[in-house]
Amino acid sequence: MTAINLIELGQRARAAATQLAKASTEQKNGALMAMAEALERHTPAILEANALDVSDARANGVDEIWIRDRMDMVRRMTGMIADVRKVAELPDPVGREIESRTLENGLRVTRRRTPLGVLGVIYESRPNVTVDVVTLAVKSSNAVILRGGKEVMRTNMALVGLLRQALTDCGLPADAVQYIESTERQYVNEMLKLHQYIDMIIPRGGNDLHRLCRENSTIPVITGGIGICHLFVDESADAEASLKVIHNAKTQRPAVCNSVETVLVHQQVAAVFLPKLVDAVGKEGVIFKADPRAMQLLDGYSPAVEAAGPQDFDTEWYALILSVKVVDGLDEAIAHIQQHSTQHSDGILTHDVDHANRFLDEIDSAAVYWNASTRFTDGSALGLGAEIAVSTQKLHARGPMALEELTTYKWVIVGDYHIRG
Amino acid sequence: MTAINLIELGQRARAAATQLAKASTEQKNGALMAMAEALERHTPAILEANALDVSDARANGVDEIWIRDRMDMVRRMTGMIADVRKVAELPDPVGREIESRTLENGLRVTRRRTPLGVLGVIYESRPNVTVDVVTLAVKSSNAVILRGGKEVMRTNMALVGLLRQALTDCGLPADAVQYIESTERQYVNEMLKLHQYIDMIIPRGGNDLHRLCRENSTIPVITGGIGICHLFVDESADAEASLKVIHNAKTQRPAVCNSVETVLVHQQVAAVFLPKLVDAVGKEGVIFKADPRAMQLLDGYSPAVEAAGPQDFDTEWYALILSVKVVDGLDEAIAHIQQHSTQHSDGILTHDVDHANRFLDEIDSAAVYWNASTRFTDGSALGLGAEIAVSTQKLHARGPMALEELTTYKWVIVGDYHIRG
Repeated sequence: MTAINLIELGQRARAAATQLAKASTEQKNGALMAMAEALERHTPAILEANALDVSDARANGVDEIWIRDRMDMVRRMTGMIADVRKVAELPDPVGREIESRTLENGLRVTRRRTPLGVLGVIYESRPNVTVDVVTLAVKSSNAVILRGGKEVMRTNMALVGLLRQALTDCGLPADAVQYIESTERQYVNEMLKLHQYIDMIIPRGGNDLHRLCRENSTIPVITGGIGICHLFVDESADAEASLKVIHNAKTQRPAVCNSVETVLVHQQVAAVFLPKLVDAVGKEGVIFKADPRAMQLLDGYSPAVEAAGPQDFDTEWYALILSVKVVDGLDEAIAHIQQHSTQHSDGILTHDVDHANRFLDEIDSAAVYWNASTRFTDGSALGLGAEIAVSTQKLHARGPMALEELTTYKWVIVGDYHIRG
Repeated sequence: MTAINLIELGQRARAAATQLAKASTEQKNGALMAMAEALERHTPAILEANALDVSDARANGVDEIWIRDRMDMVRRMTGMIADVRKVAELPDPVGREIESRTLENGLRVTRRRTPLGVLGVIYESRPNVTVDVVTLAVKSSNAVILRGGKEVMRTNMALVGLLRQALTDCGLPADAVQYIESTERQYVNEMLKLHQYIDMIIPRGGNDLHRLCRENSTIPVITGGIGICHLFVDESADAEASLKVIHNAKTQRPAVCNSVETVLVHQQVAAVFLPKLVDAVGKEGVIFKADPRAMQLLDGYSPAVEAAGPQDFDTEWYALILSVKVVDGLDEAIAHIQQHSTQHSDGILTHDVDHANRFLDEIDSAAVYWNASTRFTDGSALGLGAEIAVSTQKLHARGPMALEELTTYKWVIVGDYHIRG
């Protein structure tokens, strides 16, 4: 494999970003529609490349759930292409005025949204992320440097080739989409130091990738997507409705970051509620990890209920497993969440307005819920129309990130030869 | 000197931040007024500590301009105390709603401003920064960990003691203000890894400090405050008015980051304009560094005019020095700025609307100007009421940062036991 010159790649991305910044909304939307058409027309070629990736992965013993949920594109193509067209319909954030006013001295001051420039995205073996990221980047006039998982390299290269060609066909620079075509780990480390050419790093993967980026990047990093999410069932919660919310939050898509991992139950209702919970959610095959007080109340529910181990309240299960704990009340629930939450999504189920307000105020997570499933923490579900990542850090953007979060702003100041007094 | 336990310091700051997040606007303003009173009442003690710092600095051969502009507090106390009261009058950003709407499914979604948590600020020998940072932090419900320049340690400790006491007197936690009372460099490196306890690092200093932070911090860093600022005198600019703007931008406060370092002049007007510039601005003692074309036109203006060296267009002078260069026109001006600007503040002087718009669009700096001095890039001058730093990076905040930029937001989602379909 020939060495990749990341600096050259960065320079080309930077130059493309400068061109893209001048593109009109119509031109960018035209490119997005051309991308959707190309993906449709070349679906057989994409699936052929994908089939090779999948069969190699299977031969290498990759977990079948992982292959089905992430790598295999057969059932995903239509939805993915529809999403490209959806991004074309979203409003263009670039050039939008955040605020505009005339100061007392007559100076006109406007804050205007501009592209970030070049995004660096490091992700796992999900080829649809390639298309999601490229379309959101193009719409917001940003270039991208992509580094996807090695198990789907053939699929990604097929997709990237089509996306680049669509840009060229529409008079936009193909170099706005760069892919690091190598499985060598060294390029991730090199990429993280390219602050001259990359403006933002978005890691999409597990804890280790986020730590690697935080510890080695000289470029601002958006960390997120790690969700140890909690629901607290307060004394006054509607039990039946709460069961439905927990059922949804745990079982609808257990392998995503906004699914619930821990349910805390008020001691006054735990004796009645917990057995119902095990009945209602356990029938989906969920295994419960119970703290000692919950364990006492769930005596006889083995094997569905196990005693929680020391790490179980700090584990993102990504699976049909649910930690349960009995708490004395709101204070203990808040304290537990403050200690164990990854500040992604946490909720309270209650009819007590004061309790709800205290919870919403004191829990410092990207999304805080009152009487709703944590599964709504998602760009589409919250009305952003799309999503490039979910940030659980506090700078720049928090929670779901879409087009606006891929922009910065500049101060545009217009005067009549004004000088400062 | 005893070792400082930064983790303990971070834990105390974090705990104080949690308390501060619950404080009312009235309580925070009360603390700010108490701080202003304490600084007034104890001015003699502060100036006594400061006099010792200043005399030590003088004995150690610190530059007299540096001492006068940055370290000496005698003429600064009144203004600094007035600024504390001004911050008390600014609106409280915490709790403000950024947007609020009800989705089709009935879910009520609000984005609400919350404090960042704990700010880490590393700065040079300017004691007024201590007070500026603490007041803006308290107003925005953030705790701070400060690391100021060693030459003013006594002054800073006097100030910090008073500020902490004022917090205690008003029922707020003194630990919201932590100061790393050591001159050891190791603590800066340690501080940059405290991502569990610090949410944002603001370095206020030169290039080296910014590089140190960017390369070593595992905490998001706001880089900025480095200004190689440009003004381009276009063919159609009003010459007399342009001279006044350049005079202001260069000479009003040469040692600040928004002063102009390079003037580009359109070739059509250079022969007339440049000699006028040297006359008008040179009489303040400004030395000019001229490119070869400008040098030819300024033959005979030695010693005020010197040939520019290879690094002169990449130097932030912080002094009465101005680089000048003749360009063929707008294209060359834009290209020069794109290559040499630190993306702080750059402006065009012109009567040509198309040229102005191209410049404002294509120059990707925090502040872009049309017919005004670059000196306006400042939180007070642009109507923010205060300033904690000027960001020249693109994430989170760009340009002057004040109270709102010290907040993040959370998504508050309220339902009626909503589940995701």
